[in-house]
Amino acid sequence: MKLKELAERLGCELSGDPDLDIHGIATIDEAGPNELTFLTNPRYSRKLATTRAGAVLLSSSSPAAPLPSLRCGDPHRALARALALFYEPPPRLPGVHPTAIVGDGAKLGEGVSVGPYVVIGERAEIGDGSVLHPHVVVYPDVKIGKNFVAHAGAVIRERVVIGDNVVVHAGVVLGSDGFGFVPVAGSHPLKIPQTGSVKVEDDVEIGANSTVDRATVGATVLGAGAKLDNLVMIGHGSKVGEDSLLAGQVGLAGSTVVGRRVMMGGQAGAAGHLTIGDGVQVAAKSGIANSLEPGAVVGGYPAIEASLWRRAVAAFPKLPDLLRRVRQLELGGPEKRSAET
Amino acid sequence: MKLKELAERLGCELSGDPDLDIHGIATIDEAGPNELTFLTNPRYSRKLATTRAGAVLLSSSSPAAPLPSLRCGDPHRALARALALFYEPPPRLPGVHPTAIVGDGAKLGEGVSVGPYVVIGERAEIGDGSVLHPHVVVYPDVKIGKNFVAHAGAVIRERVVIGDNVVVHAGVVLGSDGFGFVPVAGSHPLKIPQTGSVKVEDDVEIGANSTVDRATVGATVLGAGAKLDNLVMIGHGSKVGEDSLLAGQVGLAGSTVVGRRVMMGGQAGAAGHLTIGDGVQVAAKSGIANSLEPGAVVGGYPAIEASLWRRAVAAFPKLPDLLRRVRQLELGGPEKRSAET
Amino acid sequence: MKLKELAERLGCELSGDPDLDIHGIATIDEAGPNELTFLTNPRYSRKLATTRAGAVLLSSSSPAAPLPSLRCGDPHRALARALALFYEPPPRLPGVHPTAIVGDGAKLGEGVSVGPYVVIGERAEIGDGSVLHPHVVVYPDVKIGKNFVAHAGAVIRERVVIGDNVVVHAGVVLGSDGFGFVPVAGSHPLKIPQTGSVKVEDDVEIGANSTVDRATVGATVLGAGAKLDNLVMIGHGSKVGEDSLLAGQVGLAGSTVVGRRVMMGGQAGAAGHLTIGDGVQVAAKSGIANSLEPGAVVGGYPAIEASLWRRAVAAFPKLPDLLRRVRQLELGGPEKRSAET
Repeated sequence: MKLKELAERLGCELSGDPDLDIHGIATIDEAGPNELTFLTNPRYSRKLATTRAGAVLLSSSSPAAPLPSLRCGDPHRALARALALFYEPPPRLPGVHPTAIVGDGAKLGEGVSVGPYVVIGERAEIGDGSVLHPHVVVYPDVKIGKNFVAHAGAVIRERVVIGDNVVVHAGVVLGSDGFGFVPVAGSHPLKIPQTGSVKVEDDVEIGANSTVDRATVGATVLGAGAKLDNLVMIGHGSKVGEDSLLAGQVGLAGSTVVGRRVMMGGQAGAAGHLTIGDGVQVAAKSGIANSLEPGAVVGGYPAIEASLWRRAVAAFPKLPDLLRRVRQLELGGPEKRSAET
Repeated sequence: MKLKELAERLGCELSGDPDLDIHGIATIDEAGPNELTFLTNPRYSRKLATTRAGAVLLSSSSPAAPLPSLRCGDPHRALARALALFYEPPPRLPGVHPTAIVGDGAKLGEGVSVGPYVVIGERAEIGDGSVLHPHVVVYPDVKIGKNFVAHAGAVIRERVVIGDNVVVHAGVVLGSDGFGFVPVAGSHPLKIPQTGSVKVEDDVEIGANSTVDRATVGATVLGAGAKLDNLVMIGHGSKVGEDSLLAGQVGLAGSTVVGRRVMMGGQAGAAGHLTIGDGVQVAAKSGIANSLEPGAVVGGYPAIEASLWRRAVAAFPKLPDLLRRVRQLELGGPEKRSAET
Repeated sequence: MKLKELAERLGCELSGDPDLDIHGIATIDEAGPNELTFLTNPRYSRKLATTRAGAVLLSSSSPAAPLPSLRCGDPHRALARALALFYEPPPRLPGVHPTAIVGDGAKLGEGVSVGPYVVIGERAEIGDGSVLHPHVVVYPDVKIGKNFVAHAGAVIRERVVIGDNVVVHAGVVLGSDGFGFVPVAGSHPLKIPQTGSVKVEDDVEIGANSTVDRATVGATVLGAGAKLDNLVMIGHGSKVGEDSLLAGQVGLAGSTVVGRRVMMGGQAGAAGHLTIGDGVQVAAKSGIANSLEPGAVVGGYPAIEASLWRRAVAAFPKLPDLLRRVRQLELGGPEKRSAET
């Protein structure tokens, strides 16, 4: 594709040779003379001087670049579009593979692709245009909307309800039993039956090997547009608000309510029975021990206001020296006192 | 079911309309006029004033409730029973599905249910009443007791030994190789063959996508009644004591011995070659770096006595200010001294 | 096997009865009179006095042992060899199981073992001597070298490239979508298509249920000889250097470059877009927030130099008392002043 055509399709301002052929997109380190690279993280701007890329996609507000460029008001959106132009998703096999097992009373929508060895339980419903890759297992009585994509080995337990345009990656487990056990003197812990379910709203995406437990009663809910990374754990009865982003290995204990547009960094966790307000931002590895007001920005464990946390962790390595200095001050008192006497 | 019948079955004291029809159980926020709710966490007691529930199950010692109630000496046990009354577990398919592959010499007990595409290795033994959901893979020479339940995609590696009444959720891996590598100068790390196994005792339950590695020699052991949540990692040669509860994303490095009735909060971890005494309680996200006496209650990383840890983390945000104050005191000395001169 | 034969095969110095029969290898607590035990961790040396083992394998530099011994210059290597002598790996089924599905244009090398219900996509290539255990799913256009071993349920997404002698344990997912979403006002987060791939070099081993995301563009890379434990998460575009060891539940955010021979302890994590130098050692549970020079040894979160971190965490429990002492010092000033007046 010519650079000028790319500029038009992406709605970006072109500077440089309009007839440059672009064959693909690559990182600033790896791009060659017929590839477009991109600068969405200013950390890498010094690399513009040395990149071999044919052209660069960057923000309208970026300084001038020493190579042909596409300047875009929203460079992330332009990059997403550009990538889609050159990306070929894994092919969808048409129809239901002869080895797939579809239970009695199950309903498959129009154009559903069901891969080898998929097992669909009785009375399960799967909406139009969905793709079930090989080895997906759908338990009975599951209800799934349109354009569902499930990668290999994903497991959807009984009675889980899933909206439209949901993507679950390989190894995801939705609707496993919540962790409900009560210690009992003189006996093994008592299991609380987990009779509820999981509800996944529209446009949710769930990363590989993540697990979402079903509620004791009612439903664990992933709100519309929420995105979960890999190896995330959502405890029973928790609710993740719309458009929230949970990075890799995040964990939510049970019955915690996460607001809309919350962002949790990797390996962060939240205790149970909390309310995390809309728009909260949580630093990676933080542990949320208390409910948080909307818009809070927190870090550490237990998580505190982020700028305070940053100052405190910056002071932390000085703690041994501080101990020594206070001891000195304490000794200095008596010394002085003895000098005073 | 009438409320009075429910009271009788649960052994709870009824107050309010005995003929109220109860159709199910729901959370205090979601319950309707023909549903029973429950109050097992006092955090929610204020919600009794506004719940639409028909009745509430609570502790004998709770204050009076403004709606019909079932008062129970052990409300958790009563709730577990009540949930079981209304809960329909996923159906067990009778017999061995024609697509299941059962290796030579494998033995299946009475009434075993083997789902589609299950693979059972040679000489494996599976006890009476067990249920293997679709896509479970049992390697050769595994021995499993009665009433085993394995959800879709669980993998049991060769020679693993499992007791009676064990439940493994979807995606669980038992008996994967321990992480035994030794750095070698001038070559790739040396793999220590992991020749041991995993032994899971009776009444253990293991959450979705958790992994239990087999030992280098001997066995990694999960004691009777131990319960593991999702995405838990048990390193090679570790032992989890009877009735211990390990919450989501907990990790044990190798050769660590966890006592009985230990409780580890979510995302907590323990270093290798430690002994954690009976009844130890570990706060979420804590990291255990040293062996712990029985009954210890710890938090933080490295984990310290919990009340001390709580006081220290409460003081932590004051650290930057403390630095400033000590600097002031140090400056104050000379100032005062100069004033004194 | 006679102890003298074992000594010869392992190249170790024998002391004690050369004709002792050794039937296997066991831990120092569990070994019986016809078993060899080993002492590779000095923590357990006091157990030599009480072990029932027939003989012990230990370092040439260890003190005298009260039982027959094999003294070896490199006891880890000798142990690895000894274990291999007594270890029988899970049998490889010959050929392609009739239930395996091999896509059009796929190429299987000499002696490849393909288990029941394995699915191999179109045009995938799998090298000589590889073993695919039951239920492995290989998407189209994957390229895999010789002697690959994949345990049950592992998933290799489209276009992933894998070198020789790679082992992936059960439930591993290679090539899942990177977590690329950009918040958008008034709409769901925007997905950045993940058009890149994963490249796994020779002699890599990946633990159960770990996940390696494919890059947005280019490739996520695991360098030759790198070893990952279970439930590890490698974010899109990250690179793990040769021979690095990542323990259980470690997480790397995106675009982080980890050097060679790096060791990361369990549950450690690294933020994105960092460079971690060769030979860096990271304590368990640490969080790396900034790039690290080669050879750095770090701990804590944010990770700092390890010995400093150890001193700081040792001082941490004294923080509440320190606050009290500083308050006292501050009060001491006025008191003294009033005494002075």
